[in-house]
Amino acid sequence: MNSLPKVHTGFQSSTEKLLDWNHPMYKLYEKAKKFGGWNPIDIDFSVDRQSVLNSGPKERELVAQLVALFGAGEEAVTLDFLPVLYTMANEGRLEDTIYLTTFLYEEAKHTEFFARWRQEVGMTEDLSKYHTDNYKKVFYEMLPQAMNALYTDNSPEAQVRALTTYHMVVEGMLAESGYHSFRLGFQATGLLPGMIEGIKNLGRDEGRHIGFGTYTLRRLISQDPKLYDVFTETMDGLLPYAIGLINDTIAITEGEEMYGVDWTIMTDYAIKQYNTREASISKAKDHFDAYLEIEEEAEAIIE
Amino acid sequence: MNSLPKVHTGFQSSTEKLLDWNHPMYKLYEKAKKFGGWNPIDIDFSVDRQSVLNSGPKERELVAQLVALFGAGEEAVTLDFLPVLYTMANEGRLEDTIYLTTFLYEEAKHTEFFARWRQEVGMTEDLSKYHTDNYKKVFYEMLPQAMNALYTDNSPEAQVRALTTYHMVVEGMLAESGYHSFRLGFQATGLLPGMIEGIKNLGRDEGRHIGFGTYTLRRLISQDPKLYDVFTETMDGLLPYAIGLINDTIAITEGEEMYGVDWTIMTDYAIKQYNTREASISKAKDHFDAYLEIEEEAEAIIE
Repeated sequence: MNSLPKVHTGFQSSTEKLLDWNHPMYKLYEKAKKFGGWNPIDIDFSVDRQSVLNSGPKERELVAQLVALFGAGEEAVTLDFLPVLYTMANEGRLEDTIYLTTFLYEEAKHTEFFARWRQEVGMTEDLSKYHTDNYKKVFYEMLPQAMNALYTDNSPEAQVRALTTYHMVVEGMLAESGYHSFRLGFQATGLLPGMIEGIKNLGRDEGRHIGFGTYTLRRLISQDPKLYDVFTETMDGLLPYAIGLINDTIAITEGEEMYGVDWTIMTDYAIKQYNTREASISKAKDHFDAYLEIEEEAEAIIE
Repeated sequence: MNSLPKVHTGFQSSTEKLLDWNHPMYKLYEKAKKFGGWNPIDIDFSVDRQSVLNSGPKERELVAQLVALFGAGEEAVTLDFLPVLYTMANEGRLEDTIYLTTFLYEEAKHTEFFARWRQEVGMTEDLSKYHTDNYKKVFYEMLPQAMNALYTDNSPEAQVRALTTYHMVVEGMLAESGYHSFRLGFQATGLLPGMIEGIKNLGRDEGRHIGFGTYTLRRLISQDPKLYDVFTETMDGLLPYAIGLINDTIAITEGEEMYGVDWTIMTDYAIKQYNTREASISKAKDHFDAYLEIEEEAEAIIE
């Protein structure tokens, strides 16, 4: 907390600087205002409710597990994201801070979405039992620890650790794989149209969120390529638990098709996401003298 | 930072608790989703631009001062609100935290609104010179100090000090008086229709924000009526600077009418707001055994 400014020495928007309307994060904020206004309360869950009522016990349990993982994941990323806002605000990054207010609101809305779905379809029992040891390791421990470290250590290293955990593994690898599993199992069958509609909106929001993470990790690593090692160490440290929690989730299928799908492909999909994230960040370490180029590329990712 | 949980022990929305759909702060969140979606970029500022171009130097300066105060005020309340989210999240108040994500997003949007207005009407010079000593005392010092104290002291006393400064004086007295001054000077004349449209939206958002502040102060004071003294001490400590900064702003009019308005009435209006806030909170100290009743009343305020 030593870095905390106890007083202000001025306000950017009062000066001739105003806001940097061309800042990549400001542009992301404009996108969020334009596309982030969906409301879970407008989604019809009546078909989902009927599908859940009609499902067999094993089918219902697979869905319950996915929802248990996703719902708590959204609650975790809502509660644990504040230290990033704190860091950006303390560094005087007004455009980043402004964008991140939409980010936080969207995570809260995602938390509401899964709670509302459960309420509407009648899956209101305690789902915490589906949080396995691997899941707890990532969401109960490693994520909050990496994030909360920013309150006492705002070094670039600590920022890389936090953003890699949050944006690259939790959002970029696990959430993306989760969306894929819902689409895979329920888009074609039409069994859970409300869930699919929500997931589509969530995915768009998360695309912007990962845009912030990619942009900021590249900014940090381009300024000090040694941080790339911190990035890969963090990725590697999380990988076994991330893969473990996916395997825990699909164990119920015992390798057999459910909802017409072979769920074991989820592990490969997650590893593919992991490699995509790593490749996307690795560019920054060779381009630390070409920050603007990377900035433009990050912008293209965000589009 | 001692109170900071480094790990999670569970996630409310995964249990059978889900979310408390009837929690007053959850209801406020639903309202924010429904009514908070306005976008500064959709507002037409062309008439405002012409009016500013055509205004005399003294008239232009009065508007510049109001915008300088308001714009920095919105930036301040965006940057300084994080400790309240931190406190609510740490206390496990999930519904409050969810509501506050919309609150923070709205403050960021208000910051954008004033910067955008300045950009669009061509009032892009540095306006920091209009931040007088009284203004600096409140917005550069007392507000961030009261808010940031929550990072190291989450006691009810510290919470009452922070919320009183933020919601009762900065929002409830100063911002409300600021809106009034814009409506007073520019609603009837039609000179700044873009500004008036924005102010109308801002006012609606701030109504919800003050609803949170009133509700939470009443919750705290109803549980320990001694905190009412902390509330009044904080109010009284801010009053001279709050009145001072309003007087600084209207000094340019030298007591004469501008835009057809006697601006000295602003001081009385601000004192009226101060008394309204004090009366609204004072109810809680006599009703500390009737928390639910107060909760219902707070809910009625929010409606």
